[in-house]
Amino acid sequence: MLPCALRPRDIAPRPQLDVCIKDGRSSMSGLLHWVWLSTLPNLSARKTARLLDELGSPLEIYNASPERLAGVSEITGADVAALSDKSLRRADKILNDSARLGQQLITAGDACYPELLRAIDDPPAVLYCRGKLQTLDCRPAIAVVGPREPTQYGYRVAKTLAYQLALAGVTIVSGMARGTDAAAHAAALEAGKPTVAVLGCGLDICYPYENAALYNDIPKTGLLISEYPPGTPPLHSHFPVRNRIISGLCCAVLVPEAPKRSGSLITASCAAEQGRDVFAVPGNIDVPSSAGTNALIRDGARLVMNAGDILSELAYLYPDRVASVSGDAETLDASDDRYCVQPVPPQRADGAAVSVPLSEALLRKAADTSVPLAERLCALLAHAAQHADSLIEAVPESAAEVTAALTVLELEGKIHQLPGKTFALA
Amino acid sequence: MLPCALRPRDIAPRPQLDVCIKDGRSSMSGLLHWVWLSTLPNLSARKTARLLDELGSPLEIYNASPERLAGVSEITGADVAALSDKSLRRADKILNDSARLGQQLITAGDACYPELLRAIDDPPAVLYCRGKLQTLDCRPAIAVVGPREPTQYGYRVAKTLAYQLALAGVTIVSGMARGTDAAAHAAALEAGKPTVAVLGCGLDICYPYENAALYNDIPKTGLLISEYPPGTPPLHSHFPVRNRIISGLCCAVLVPEAPKRSGSLITASCAAEQGRDVFAVPGNIDVPSSAGTNALIRDGARLVMNAGDILSELAYLYPDRVASVSGDAETLDASDDRYCVQPVPPQRADGAAVSVPLSEALLRKAADTSVPLAERLCALLAHAAQHADSLIEAVPESAAEVTAALTVLELEGKIHQLPGKTFALA
Repeated sequence: MLPCALRPRDIAPRPQLDVCIKDGRSSMSGLLHWVWLSTLPNLSARKTARLLDELGSPLEIYNASPERLAGVSEITGADVAALSDKSLRRADKILNDSARLGQQLITAGDACYPELLRAIDDPPAVLYCRGKLQTLDCRPAIAVVGPREPTQYGYRVAKTLAYQLALAGVTIVSGMARGTDAAAHAAALEAGKPTVAVLGCGLDICYPYENAALYNDIPKTGLLISEYPPGTPPLHSHFPVRNRIISGLCCAVLVPEAPKRSGSLITASCAAEQGRDVFAVPGNIDVPSSAGTNALIRDGARLVMNAGDILSELAYLYPDRVASVSGDAETLDASDDRYCVQPVPPQRADGAAVSVPLSEALLRKAADTSVPLAERLCALLAHAAQHADSLIEAVPESAAEVTAALTVLELEGKIHQLPGKTFALA
Repeated sequence: MLPCALRPRDIAPRPQLDVCIKDGRSSMSGLLHWVWLSTLPNLSARKTARLLDELGSPLEIYNASPERLAGVSEITGADVAALSDKSLRRADKILNDSARLGQQLITAGDACYPELLRAIDDPPAVLYCRGKLQTLDCRPAIAVVGPREPTQYGYRVAKTLAYQLALAGVTIVSGMARGTDAAAHAAALEAGKPTVAVLGCGLDICYPYENAALYNDIPKTGLLISEYPPGTPPLHSHFPVRNRIISGLCCAVLVPEAPKRSGSLITASCAAEQGRDVFAVPGNIDVPSSAGTNALIRDGARLVMNAGDILSELAYLYPDRVASVSGDAETLDASDDRYCVQPVPPQRADGAAVSVPLSEALLRKAADTSVPLAERLCALLAHAAQHADSLIEAVPESAAEVTAALTVLELEGKIHQLPGKTFALA
């Protein structure tokens, strides 16, 4: 059972650390010791946080005697040995590289360090950022996490919900991975809203390369974040560690889809440990791709049917920041149905499909034979998924011609067939 | 939020009524006044229960003065007027008809009256029964309720879960309506277990007629029940009233599928009011046919992924009566996969389907060209839904021949196409 009851507003913020602050940001000399501390090999973020809690600042940790360090809770002999490396050369190079690459550094001692992230057990001591720093003031923010190879359902749901949440004023945070992450970021950008991507490598590396467009577009309005200094490669081991930052920045995590053993379930469980809400989207129980999300809900996560289910909760926590929701929020995007979850026509047990009525205007366009048949069929399907019979009825062409055109469109990947001879745009 | 926390074992049984009992059944003379009481026009089951609570037996109610009756809580002047009709002619005719039709009567005063049903606020005073009375000792029993026109998913899920639950020792109770109800009863019978059907008309009327086979088969091992005397037609208004008996007989209600406005949601809410658990099966959020069940879960009902989710709960309540479940109960029916929820292969957002591996034995059969191609394709699909490519690979015929055969099978309604060029048996 996930401990979903604890809300971010119930988390006492960690006391602000005593470092050299100028305009809410660390000074260059202060930064050097922050970077030194955050890049010591084998010193975990959790232990760094313990040291900062007890000694106050990186400079004091830097100057502390081995005995003083060994007295800090959880700090072992190996940690003390790691802390005995007083060279600032690596930190200096990182600061120079960051400056050259246009990266900005925020430390856990800065006033602008995200409050929710600071409250987790193992906050990163330093965040490397590229983009608009004000995006960090991203309350309310929702993490959207899911598989790298979502099904069409998972992809559609991730994109729809992220779009609707972004439109309503929620910052979408994710990891810029393939599939679900990319869908969520793209939806936020298409809603014209900033989004935060937390990378598992240095910010100078675009990984995966197929997300180059997001990598370039996100910092224009939003933010790329990493706890890894410039040049750090996207090692496999970085991603689970990175996930704590994704959930840590947010008041809740949304899992649109997850099979039984999925990385996003780890993020969800980590989020629950951080005291964040976990929202999951249900799916049919006979598809393995929803087994993880269904299990999450069975075990205590909150079921999400539409963006309103999340927004009504956030509106309560952040009344001045979230578009108010009345009743079902399915109407939120009435003016923009690009990512509206298109209801798939249900099919009765006897095989008959329920038809979706077409408007007079659509039927007039469908009858215009000066437009290619394939184009008219796609226009009809853009309205809603349709049974083959409705399409055949809507156009003047013969059933054979329509069937042939549908087959070609399907082979071209432009449409796909749903159960019961029903077609939808791909 | 549904009050799901109250379990049947927490409900104090209504004290057994003081009536003439012989071998645990009412005597004929006692029965006359029970039937008189239960068939007085406009006297609700709830008010009848109040009268029995305060006066003890139908005979005492029959003999009570108007003043005494008016003093009973909730009893109005109109009720007293109804109770002033002391004619026993109708009751006598009903008893004669019941005897002639082989119906057995059980009263709320009988020891064999179902304890859980007696505990509801408005138990029927008299139950007309046809079949094996011992089925009434049906703990644990689960009500399975859903739409009359389920989708293929809802039908499959209802049948699978009812079959698995019945096999494990749970009595399936439903209303013998078309669709979900019929699927649940049929699954229990096919598992070789008794089932209870609660009708909204007299037991001498088979309604709906398409369920004639169930109507004949259920009483052979299980039970038909009604609170309506012989000859009562299936009036529309009877069904919502009847639903309280379906849930009242059970410790939990399972809703395999329900659209937003569905009668089964009323039964679920009524079950929750009776302090019974509500279990619901989730579904994709972009099909209207699961909107009701998803909302039930969102609002507090328990999510069911497989029969084990219910059985583990029942095994706790009835440790000696339910087959024990270890881990996921998906293996429960390993020996009989007729109604196993066949996992539908998921499809990735890029359109690729995940293939289901075929066994050597299946591939050998698929290569045997002495058997018609259509037959071999159906045999492959009986194993699991398959991508067209896997089918083409499995048989010696050309891709064109396979595609043509699949089209014919689909037109004949023997198979249907899932998203991503994947086929399944219809």
